[in-house]
Amino acid sequence: MSTLLQVVEACGIIAFACSGFVEARRKDMDLVGVFIVAFVTAFGGGTLRDMLLDRRPLFWVEHQEYAILVFVLALLAGPFLPHLRSAVAEKTIVVADALGLGLFSAVGTSLALEAQMPVFICVMMGVTTGIFGGVLRDVLCNEIPMVFRREQLYATCSLLGCAVYMVLEWLDMTSAVALISSILVTSVLRLLAVKMNWRLPG
Amino acid sequence: MSTLLQVVEACGIIAFACSGFVEARRKDMDLVGVFIVAFVTAFGGGTLRDMLLDRRPLFWVEHQEYAILVFVLALLAGPFLPHLRSAVAEKTIVVADALGLGLFSAVGTSLALEAQMPVFICVMMGVTTGIFGGVLRDVLCNEIPMVFRREQLYATCSLLGCAVYMVLEWLDMTSAVALISSILVTSVLRLLAVKMNWRLPG
Amino acid sequence: MSTLLQVVEACGIIAFACSGFVEARRKDMDLVGVFIVAFVTAFGGGTLRDMLLDRRPLFWVEHQEYAILVFVLALLAGPFLPHLRSAVAEKTIVVADALGLGLFSAVGTSLALEAQMPVFICVMMGVTTGIFGGVLRDVLCNEIPMVFRREQLYATCSLLGCAVYMVLEWLDMTSAVALISSILVTSVLRLLAVKMNWRLPG
Repeated sequence: MSTLLQVVEACGIIAFACSGFVEARRKDMDLVGVFIVAFVTAFGGGTLRDMLLDRRPLFWVEHQEYAILVFVLALLAGPFLPHLRSAVAEKTIVVADALGLGLFSAVGTSLALEAQMPVFICVMMGVTTGIFGGVLRDVLCNEIPMVFRREQLYATCSLLGCAVYMVLEWLDMTSAVALISSILVTSVLRLLAVKMNWRLPG
Repeated sequence: MSTLLQVVEACGIIAFACSGFVEARRKDMDLVGVFIVAFVTAFGGGTLRDMLLDRRPLFWVEHQEYAILVFVLALLAGPFLPHLRSAVAEKTIVVADALGLGLFSAVGTSLALEAQMPVFICVMMGVTTGIFGGVLRDVLCNEIPMVFRREQLYATCSLLGCAVYMVLEWLDMTSAVALISSILVTSVLRLLAVKMNWRLPG
Repeated sequence: MSTLLQVVEACGIIAFACSGFVEARRKDMDLVGVFIVAFVTAFGGGTLRDMLLDRRPLFWVEHQEYAILVFVLALLAGPFLPHLRSAVAEKTIVVADALGLGLFSAVGTSLALEAQMPVFICVMMGVTTGIFGGVLRDVLCNEIPMVFRREQLYATCSLLGCAVYMVLEWLDMTSAVALISSILVTSVLRLLAVKMNWRLPG
């Protein structure tokens, strides 16, 4: 179970980093830009949450292997990224990104609950963990954040998944049940939103 | 007196959130974008100050009712905002925004003083509390921050109000006198600047 | 030796602030904008590092004289900046900026090492200290950060200087030797990169 979560986590980090690579290359950045944008996309949400909650050490400080992984991927992104632009690769990234969004959101909510935050703040911390990496990526790339535009539902899926987490905790379910259910709700909703082209009104 | 300040505070938060709504709608954002931009406008300055001073818990974490208020307002902003575009509504928002700027700046200065910061830093923390919500709003909306452009005086009013706070404290006035005077100086200067079209040189 | 470092530090802060002045004036900002952009350029990198490492008090809070210096320079920048645009002034700023980059990077690495961070994180903290002031300057000015674009090597010089610091520490050299060598490596590489027009691939 713990191993499974670690696999999901690694998939999510790689998927988030990939969205950073794609965006940074589109802006014609050099290796430094590609690495920093990918790093911020992958770890920005969790870092902001930890700074707001005053939690230390930060995730990527404790696990420098993840930071090194993103660095190595950035080195490889230059020569290999153009070949990844196939339909299969893009679908894989969408699925991994949805899993990452689900995991990051659920973990963010659970850490805020652990820090005894009030209910609404726990949900906000979950959503922040899930989406703010992408927000910071778009700010660094000088774009209006994708999740604020009327694209297919993204933050809303995270919000509902975090709410499910809080309801299950309130019903005294075990943390494992709440975590898995929350990840599934967020990820499945996100994949449905992409498939069915669901959008929010203005 | 304390009730009066709470009323001013609520007015300020609503006015700041409204400027977030207007900006987010101008960029054609969806509900998620509208909420986050409004939230960041209302609480960004105080949050940055608290992170710089290492104060916890954050204001909106302790008072989740304000975060919920902004969320509810964001839900209502979609259908109701277009009707708010009358001259009366715009004037009301300018006044409430000036009051909010005055209160946030004065409170920021007083909290920095409490944390025993040096004089110049206390003033900077007051100005940061007052204006950085708007700076972050404009960064998220992909604009050069309004307060940096040659618009009618805004940050300068906050700076003078914070300086008045420090002078009155140094003269051993009570905190209540310093707070009220500082709020009045900032707010009145801001309203005069709008009325008389005062601008800074480059 | 300690006096020498303080001189280098002051040079670096002034050079970083100058790059903020130039950018803010190019965007036609008023005095408030010029001051805040210069301040963020000069102290943003170190502040971000301290917030990530949870170090307090912040450098510019402890040394408010530097914040006041930037404020006074911002007041002078309006009338005097246009006269500074000579070739001599521009070369002086490039040299001072290279020294500042070297010093800030080396100090950032050494503080992270003191906080017992892992190796890769120490290097990242050094680079963050050196370059993030400029990144935040460009974000506030609504530009894609200069260090992410394919300009002459900048972050890469800082990265190599920080790596040299770590190697010398690992070889049990004194901190002074590591610091001076690291500053020299970064600064000389940066000046060579400008001279020889070295750039990174995409």
